Amino acid sequence: MSITVVGSVALDSIKSEAGAVERAIGGAAIHFANAASLCTAVHVVGVVGGDYPFEELEFLKKRGVDLGGIEVVPGGKTFFWKGRYEGGMNQAVTEVTELNVFEGFSPKLEGGRDKPDFLFLANIHPGLQKHVVELADDSAFSALDSMNYWIDNSREELEAVARMVDAVIFNDQEVRSFTGQSNLFSGARKILDMGPSCIIIKRGEHGVLALSRGWTVALPAFPLDRIVDPTGAGDSFAGALVGYLDRFCGKDRDRIMDVGCWKKALAYANCVASYNVQAFSISGIACIGLEDVVARYEEYRQICQIEGGLDVT
Amino acid sequence: MSITVVGSVALDSIKSEAGAVERAIGGAAIHFANAASLCTAVHVVGVVGGDYPFEELEFLKKRGVDLGGIEVVPGGKTFFWKGRYEGGMNQAVTEVTELNVFEGFSPKLEGGRDKPDFLFLANIHPGLQKHVVELADDSAFSALDSMNYWIDNSREELEAVARMVDAVIFNDQEVRSFTGQSNLFSGARKILDMGPSCIIIKRGEHGVLALSRGWTVALPAFPLDRIVDPTGAGDSFAGALVGYLDRFCGKDRDRIMDVGCWKKALAYANCVASYNVQAFSISGIACIGLEDVVARYEEYRQICQIEGGLDVT
Repeated sequence: MSITVVGSVALDSIKSEAGAVERAIGGAAIHFANAASLCTAVHVVGVVGGDYPFEELEFLKKRGVDLGGIEVVPGGKTFFWKGRYEGGMNQAVTEVTELNVFEGFSPKLEGGRDKPDFLFLANIHPGLQKHVVELADDSAFSALDSMNYWIDNSREELEAVARMVDAVIFNDQEVRSFTGQSNLFSGARKILDMGPSCIIIKRGEHGVLALSRGWTVALPAFPLDRIVDPTGAGDSFAGALVGYLDRFCGKDRDRIMDVGCWKKALAYANCVASYNVQAFSISGIACIGLEDVVARYEEYRQICQIEGGLDVT
Repeated sequence: MSITVVGSVALDSIKSEAGAVERAIGGAAIHFANAASLCTAVHVVGVVGGDYPFEELEFLKKRGVDLGGIEVVPGGKTFFWKGRYEGGMNQAVTEVTELNVFEGFSPKLEGGRDKPDFLFLANIHPGLQKHVVELADDSAFSALDSMNYWIDNSREELEAVARMVDAVIFNDQEVRSFTGQSNLFSGARKILDMGPSCIIIKRGEHGVLALSRGWTVALPAFPLDRIVDPTGAGDSFAGALVGYLDRFCGKDRDRIMDVGCWKKALAYANCVASYNVQAFSISGIACIGLEDVVARYEEYRQICQIEGGLDVT
C-alpha cells in the first residue's frame, strides 16, 4: 500500500503566543507526509530551491517517505511563508508569502509515483490538481484539499477536478463558499451530487463532519488546553486519515467506504492532528509513533464515547 | 424528583429563512420546562402580564409542569421579544425588546418550589439569581445560565452567584469573556476554581464540551440539514440535561457527578435540543415524547460512536 501526495514544500516563519520559529519545515505535502507516514509509505511530489534543508527530513526517510519526487531547482528559492497567530489561534495572519520556485511548479509522477493506492492532491492550483489526476493510475482512491483563493478565482477548474476525485476535504467556510449553502449538510450534499463518494469537513477545534451517500459521521476534536502552532493541522489530519485508510481499510473500494473504517480513521486523524498543534512546525508529529496515537485514541474515547443506551426505564 | 426553574416567560415574534411567527410562546423558563418535562416534574417561577395565553400551555400541565409559580400582573404586559435570523442562523438580530412586567420581576419560591432536587437559574439578573439560591433549600443541585450582558455589566454579582452553584452553563463566547481566557479549557478551569463542580459549554451547531475536576466530555451536536428557529435551543438543552440528571441519575451527589451519567445526559440533551430548532417557538419539543428522543439518540450514536479500538495490528 502507498500514497502519493502532491503539494507545497515550504519554509515557514511562525509566531504565536507560545513563541516563534524561523524558516522551519512546512508546506502541505510535508505536513501530510509526516502524519501519513506514521502508518504507511508515502511518495512526496513537490518542488524546492537549492536552499532547502533536506537534512532535516532524514527522520521522514526512515519512516518510509520517498522524497525523490521533490524536484530541486538549483539557484532557486523555496516557497516561504511568514505568519502569526493571535487570540483564539483559529486564524493565521499572513505577513509574507514568497512563492519562489513553487510559482512554476509542474508536477511529474515518475518512478512508480503514478501508481499509488491513494492519491492526495494538497492545496495547489486546481488546474494542476486535474493534471495530476490525469497522470495517475485511475484505480487510485483520490482526495483533494483546496482553499478559498481557488474557490474565488478558479471555481470552474476546481469544480472540474472535484468531479474527478473520490473525496473532497474542505473546512466549513470553504463548503459554504464553494456551494453557496449556509447549511453545511445542504452544502455537503451539493458536493456529493458532483461525483465524490464523500466529503470531509474540517471544523478545527470543533472537530470533523464527514458525509457519504450512505452515512454521516460527526466527531469532536481531541480537546487541548494549549495550542502552540496550528499551521499544518488540516494537512496532518488529511495525512493521518488517508494513511489509516490506506493501511488498515484495504484496497477494496467497498471496504474503504465502510462507515466503521471511516469512523476509526476520522477519530485516529483527530488524534494525530492534535499532536500537530502542540508544537511548532512538524515537530509535534515527528517525535511520536503509532503507539502514542493508540494511547491518545483511548483517551479520546473516554471523552466522547458513551457506554450503551439511555437509562430510560 | 423535581426541578424548579426561575427565569423569563415571554412572547416572541421571530423571523427566519423558514418563515415567521407572531407573539409565540417563548422565554427561557418555558423552553427549559418544555424540555425538562419530557422526563421529570418541573415548577416554573416567572412573571407575565394579563395578556399571557395560558391556554397554550395546557399540554405542559399534562406533562407535569407546575405553572402556579408564574405570577400574573393584571393589566401588565408580558415580556416581548422580536428578532430575526439570517444566513447561518447562529446569531439572532434583535429588533424589539420590551421587558414590561419582567422588569420588576421579584422571584418567590412558595408552595414547595423552594425544595426541588434541582434548581435552575435561567438567564436573569445575577443579583436575582443569588436571591433565589438563598431562598431555595441548599440541598438542591443548582445550575445557572447567563449572558454577555451580565458578564459586561454585573460581573461581580455574577461571580458571587457562580461561587454558590454546582454547575455553570455558558456558551463558548461567554466563557471567554467571563474568564478572559481565549482557550476554552483554561477558561473552564478558571470557572471550576471558583467553586462549581462542573462547567457546561454550549457550542451551538458544534455541540457541547463539559468539564468537572475529574473528567472532560466533548460531544458533537445532532446534525440537521434544516434549522427553522434556534430560539430557546440553549434553554431546551439545559432543561433536557437537568431533567435527565434529575430523573435518571438519582439524588446522591456522587451519582450525579458520575461521568457515565453525564455523557448520557449530555447526549440526550443534544438530541432534545435538535428538536427545538426544527420548528418555531416551543412546538418542536411540544409534540414529542421520550420514545422519540430514545430513537434519535440511537441515530446519534450511529453518527458519533465508534465500535471498539483502532485496528492497528
